[in-house]
Amino acid sequence: MIFDMILDGKKIAQDIKNEIKALVSQRISERKKRPHLAAIIVGNDGASLTYVSNKVKACNYVGFKSTLIRLEDSITEKLLLDQINVLNRDNSIDGFIVQIPLPKRINEQKVLLAIDPKKDVDGFHPTNFGQMTLDMESFIPATPYGIIELLNRYDIKTSGKNCVVIGRSNIVGRPISILLSQKSRRGNATVTLTHSRTKKLESFTKDADIIISALGIPEFLKSDMVKDGVVVIDVGITRVVDKSKPKGYKIKGDVDYLNVSKKASAITPVPGGVGPMTISMLLKNTLLACQRKD
Amino acid sequence: MIFDMILDGKKIAQDIKNEIKALVSQRISERKKRPHLAAIIVGNDGASLTYVSNKVKACNYVGFKSTLIRLEDSITEKLLLDQINVLNRDNSIDGFIVQIPLPKRINEQKVLLAIDPKKDVDGFHPTNFGQMTLDMESFIPATPYGIIELLNRYDIKTSGKNCVVIGRSNIVGRPISILLSQKSRRGNATVTLTHSRTKKLESFTKDADIIISALGIPEFLKSDMVKDGVVVIDVGITRVVDKSKPKGYKIKGDVDYLNVSKKASAITPVPGGVGPMTISMLLKNTLLACQRKD
Repeated sequence: MIFDMILDGKKIAQDIKNEIKALVSQRISERKKRPHLAAIIVGNDGASLTYVSNKVKACNYVGFKSTLIRLEDSITEKLLLDQINVLNRDNSIDGFIVQIPLPKRINEQKVLLAIDPKKDVDGFHPTNFGQMTLDMESFIPATPYGIIELLNRYDIKTSGKNCVVIGRSNIVGRPISILLSQKSRRGNATVTLTHSRTKKLESFTKDADIIISALGIPEFLKSDMVKDGVVVIDVGITRVVDKSKPKGYKIKGDVDYLNVSKKASAITPVPGGVGPMTISMLLKNTLLACQRKD
Repeated sequence: MIFDMILDGKKIAQDIKNEIKALVSQRISERKKRPHLAAIIVGNDGASLTYVSNKVKACNYVGFKSTLIRLEDSITEKLLLDQINVLNRDNSIDGFIVQIPLPKRINEQKVLLAIDPKKDVDGFHPTNFGQMTLDMESFIPATPYGIIELLNRYDIKTSGKNCVVIGRSNIVGRPISILLSQKSRRGNATVTLTHSRTKKLESFTKDADIIISALGIPEFLKSDMVKDGVVVIDVGITRVVDKSKPKGYKIKGDVDYLNVSKKASAITPVPGGVGPMTISMLLKNTLLACQRKD
């Protein structure tokens, strides 16, 4: 162990919310528009309802207006697309999200493409994704944006560093691999994107200065797979049965925290690491969408 | 040396042109629309004029209609954007390109964004780039598309292979790093994207099964930087003074071909490797644009 640094996402996320709250107050005192985030949720999935209600709470905290649109599980694709068009046209709404997963009948890609890129504060629309990839101004998806911000706030340098990303999803692994390798102050890392087809994963992770794991397998990354002084960002959030907990489960990350943290120079805990950052970055995107219209 | 295999881009490019030519003949016999590519060129840059005239020749060869719009070097940005809008609205034109570089006065990004993504056969518009990155159907930029096709035609497997890309440009390094790491038959490689800030580049290249170099430094990649059996794709095209040649220069790739080819299991020559592939892939994109309207 070189030195111990726990990357406290919960604290940083709170700092960001307070900064946004101050900016909103200032906007209001300048008679500028109050940012307004809307969310569409289809059906009654427990986890989705929790996520969305946390987003609404965060909006209230920072002084955003929020609108929650709950649609029945039986809704047709056409009616959902109509609802998206209503939000696209509604000038009072700066940004909106459609909570996934959607019922299987509904084509998620079609829904995504229907969202006006200017209001796509999740940053999942191809136009935003392309702008991000080409290093143009865009909405950056909340989780990779949160990782960049966390590294930034703890002043962890990425330039010239050997960075290994585990998992190539469109919401975490792919975009963070792109962002960290870009020619920018918070990029300039040499990034290897690893995934299910990667052979000898440990040969990559053992050389890595920074590891970002977004795999979803609890305690997958062991201490013998990393070198001393590594920086570890754990994006995994898996529910593991634990009857001693009030909810009957606990949340586990991708990293064997107890052992890896002994070798790491910096590490995110789970929970309390990357997770809390995502809502703050969604708020940041919504504020940006509102500011662009000033 | 395991075995010697020169990846003959000139031959493969010609094969593709013949395939497209046959498809065009068939379209005409079925009374379908003849594909039509337009190109805008600003000013009198010699290399640009050569590139564009080669594209026109290739169109003639495969039976496409082509339109070349030559604009004066002094043209305003506004007039260029107007011209792009004319092409966007012209139903007879399936796809078009704006040859770069443009005069410095003109904002290339603004020009790029003005092109209708449905006609952006260069695949540089953020909407196409985002769709490519998200593995949706799109126009793939010609050079990375040509690399994928070349690997494909020579049946070089990429799944699970350790692939190192040198250079992170938006037209080659970035897109090929994305394509090769995707979950697709011609992807599934573990890709490391290296660039000017990468430290100890040879520590990456020495382990690579496949190296794609798009750097633009003649004979940069030496044989002691690669392992036996490596597959090398050389995208570099640099003019080096050579008074013994009729034009006063010769074309050099990024790779020390004479020595690296002794260790490689497959390698592209320069010229005659990736270069000739790009025009064929542009034609392929134009045909696709036309087919989409059938």
